[in-house]
Amino acid sequence: MTNHDPDLSLLFHALSDPTRRAILSRLAATPARVTDLAEPTGLRLPTVMRHLSVLEEAGLIATSKQGRTRTCAIVPEALEPARTWLDEQRALWEARLDRLDDYVMKLMKERET
Amino acid sequence: MTNHDPDLSLLFHALSDPTRRAILSRLAATPARVTDLAEPTGLRLPTVMRHLSVLEEAGLIATSKQGRTRTCAIVPEALEPARTWLDEQRALWEARLDRLDDYVMKLMKERET
Repeated sequence: MTNHDPDLSLLFHALSDPTRRAILSRLAATPARVTDLAEPTGLRLPTVMRHLSVLEEAGLIATSKQGRTRTCAIVPEALEPARTWLDEQRALWEARLDRLDDYVMKLMKERET
Repeated sequence: MTNHDPDLSLLFHALSDPTRRAILSRLAATPARVTDLAEPTGLRLPTVMRHLSVLEEAGLIATSKQGRTRTCAIVPEALEPARTWLDEQRALWEARLDRLDDYVMKLMKERET
């Protein structure tokens, strides 16, 4: 996972909108039809469709069509690269704190002797 | 943490750009001057300054000025809301899988009897 991974940019971009996050939370509980997803948002259907296509492009949802009904389902493993990136940042930061700890300990020992 | 938290939108937006993610990784290792951050990106200073202001607005970095030198440092705890949101989604999804498990077990028991 590098910082220049384009998928990671699409992923974080998809998560940067409150309506899209609300849709994901809704879909985490159960798959849903596009019209059912649109209803609680109070947004017009074309706007919701645009949000859904951003989520689909980021790999976060999959859609299927039966007759005239389109159903959306979450792809939960698609969130993993975001989690991995955050974990990597935390590891980098903790390694820095450890180095700082070592340095302070060394200074204290030098002062004692 | 609700999906409509504006800070969470700023945070994910800040993370949606590869240059900004690279700057954060760089700062996780050690604080740095703006000119030092700009150099590896190959971008012009005003462009880098715009990226830094997006990061600062999201609370991910803090800057300080001494004379004519501006230094940037990461604010690591600022990443926590993103991690919390991802954890919440995973919990929702796992609860759904558990319910599905229970349902399948119930069906199998009914078939046995």
